Amino acid sequence: MSNHSQFDVHVVSPSYWKVTFENAPMNLIDLDTIEQIADLVTRIEQDPDLNVVVFQSANPDFFMAHLDLLLDNKRAAAMPAGPSGLPLVSDNLLRLSKVPAVTISAINGRVRGAGSEFVLSTDIRFAGPGAVLGQPEIGIGAVPGGNPMGRLAELVGRGRAMEIILGGDDFPAQLAAEYGYVNRVLPEGELDDFVDTFARRIAGFEKPAVSGAKEFVDAATTIPASDYAASLDAFRRTASRPESADRVRSLFARGFQQPQGIELDLGRHIAEKA
Amino acid sequence: MSNHSQFDVHVVSPSYWKVTFENAPMNLIDLDTIEQIADLVTRIEQDPDLNVVVFQSANPDFFMAHLDLLLDNKRAAAMPAGPSGLPLVSDNLLRLSKVPAVTISAINGRVRGAGSEFVLSTDIRFAGPGAVLGQPEIGIGAVPGGNPMGRLAELVGRGRAMEIILGGDDFPAQLAAEYGYVNRVLPEGELDDFVDTFARRIAGFEKPAVSGAKEFVDAATTIPASDYAASLDAFRRTASRPESADRVRSLFARGFQQPQGIELDLGRHIAEKA
Amino acid sequence: MSNHSQFDVHVVSPSYWKVTFENAPMNLIDLDTIEQIADLVTRIEQDPDLNVVVFQSANPDFFMAHLDLLLDNKRAAAMPAGPSGLPLVSDNLLRLSKVPAVTISAINGRVRGAGSEFVLSTDIRFAGPGAVLGQPEIGIGAVPGGNPMGRLAELVGRGRAMEIILGGDDFPAQLAAEYGYVNRVLPEGELDDFVDTFARRIAGFEKPAVSGAKEFVDAATTIPASDYAASLDAFRRTASRPESADRVRSLFARGFQQPQGIELDLGRHIAEKA
Repeated sequence: MSNHSQFDVHVVSPSYWKVTFENAPMNLIDLDTIEQIADLVTRIEQDPDLNVVVFQSANPDFFMAHLDLLLDNKRAAAMPAGPSGLPLVSDNLLRLSKVPAVTISAINGRVRGAGSEFVLSTDIRFAGPGAVLGQPEIGIGAVPGGNPMGRLAELVGRGRAMEIILGGDDFPAQLAAEYGYVNRVLPEGELDDFVDTFARRIAGFEKPAVSGAKEFVDAATTIPASDYAASLDAFRRTASRPESADRVRSLFARGFQQPQGIELDLGRHIAEKA
Repeated sequence: MSNHSQFDVHVVSPSYWKVTFENAPMNLIDLDTIEQIADLVTRIEQDPDLNVVVFQSANPDFFMAHLDLLLDNKRAAAMPAGPSGLPLVSDNLLRLSKVPAVTISAINGRVRGAGSEFVLSTDIRFAGPGAVLGQPEIGIGAVPGGNPMGRLAELVGRGRAMEIILGGDDFPAQLAAEYGYVNRVLPEGELDDFVDTFARRIAGFEKPAVSGAKEFVDAATTIPASDYAASLDAFRRTASRPESADRVRSLFARGFQQPQGIELDLGRHIAEKA
Repeated sequence: MSNHSQFDVHVVSPSYWKVTFENAPMNLIDLDTIEQIADLVTRIEQDPDLNVVVFQSANPDFFMAHLDLLLDNKRAAAMPAGPSGLPLVSDNLLRLSKVPAVTISAINGRVRGAGSEFVLSTDIRFAGPGAVLGQPEIGIGAVPGGNPMGRLAELVGRGRAMEIILGGDDFPAQLAAEYGYVNRVLPEGELDDFVDTFARRIAGFEKPAVSGAKEFVDAATTIPASDYAASLDAFRRTASRPESADRVRSLFARGFQQPQGIELDLGRHIAEKA
């Protein structure tokens, strides 16, 4: 395990943290990321004064690319379960959605797959005009593992959730906002200030009101732990088929997990067999 | 029963069917339609290779007009229940929503009442700019029978579902897209290519991933069979009142179920007692 | 208790009432309002011919300002529970959402807090271009008491509900329509005619169909009485903290509950500690 922290936590004030993700060169989500998210969620859970956390990316092209498909399966299998009893990768999503602070994703660049599942587990998504979201798992022959099916069904309705999940295509910010995948898209150059102003607003409120009100919205939209477990099982089952391995191999042959090339336009390339 | 097939199934490839509905002169839904939908759903359920089915209409003015109100009640009463135990007309909607392939309605022209309930039971709705959707049942004094109340509440939220169901008016494509009644509206002349490209994309993915991922979105948005039963009961109860018969009679006197005239603008005419 | 009626009920026809709210000078919701809403809801529940009720405001600047924070706590504590067993203020919202007539809010001016909760409990919200909606409770250190968390989560999805409730800001009509907080915004000068035409349409339909169809949409989006109880408890617990009292005091020092000044722009001022 690397000791390098991928998450820079800037304590703007006791009630407001700004967390910047960087995992060069393209913000893949690897096993370190998963362990560090778990620790970060625990810190957020336990902080008595924290009202609001903004997540942003140090990489203008990638907010969070997607799961690193070259990860060490032995180390992954050995990772202990999270506090909910779910595997850590699922536990992160479930716990993140319930932290007693408001979490905001300020999205620039691409955020796909497990990255999309991460932002769907934050409370609010604001996007820059060039942001791109998507769940490309279907293109590697897999059911998404972090239950974006449940989150998107609630956010954008059955029809659009089907389109996003089954099409596996890229959703540019404007369309994502029309569908409700993100709250709204800000004009060029305005995202950071808008999010900072919004976060300072919440930072100035009082924790009992903030965490109390959030709890009610969460309760109305909560997803049972069993759905996360079922989604991860389905991912593992479908992604371990030989046909899925072939698709992944073909993607790597074409430049998968390289910061330039097909990752810039993955929605298109995921649907092409080489 | 006519042996004429109202549904032309074009097998574009083993994983992609394009189904064209035609029931001249105006694509009413009659008892043949209902029986043929049942058979078609069974075929879709059982096909091992099918990933995606596109539904379109051969009639540019009517995707599916609505239930034929001149249908043979004796034959209707004698129709056996569907596999779920529900009457066939309800069973079709329930089973269609759960087929292990992605279903897409490519909507041109008008689709109202039982036709709207049909497209609401497909997974994804794309519309041409001249498409018109609506649930005019309230105008014949009836509660809609195919439970669009449940589907629309999930898709567009309580407020807009109330407006659509209680107002009984026509919803042009653009407004339908703003509300979420359809996924999106395509510019003039682009619907067919857009849908075909999207369907070929899904056709190229793998069935275990497609049907597996769909199942999760369906589970998050499913409607219990008992709701379909209750909706059909409410339709029968309300539509069999003498006041409802009067309204239907008045509509026929004004040109109901004729391809020209009030059917072009039914949302307006349904609210006028002649 | 004042005998002055704050709700003018204009019986346009036996099936259509237009109710105009006026509680000068700025349409605060006080204890009289709450008692009069209870009576009005009972009248609506019991009327055998009523299909549709339109709510509007006599005050162009305020549809309903918000709860009067200077109300008589002793009298409030002595108010009997409503028919559901919930305190009257919650009972009103629950019962209003279930009346067997369609209820429409025709919103001009500001509607915040308990006023927003009122319109969220009507079936349909149409807004003029200058309308402003919001839930500013977080700014007085309180969890909203009328469970807008549940209603908004259903209407606009988790992400936007979080933004509205946790940000506590004003939502102008256009943004409210994009989010689904209101059904749609009408152009300047067109709201009244649009709503009247829509209401006359429903008034001309038949009560068994209207109330029957509404019941299905309501059933699909209903909120349990226990959620209203929990929300009111959370409001009382959070609003009775000394920090909350300080915030309210500061707001009064700056012109709170005066029809001019900070109430025109409360979303901004609520986030500023004086």
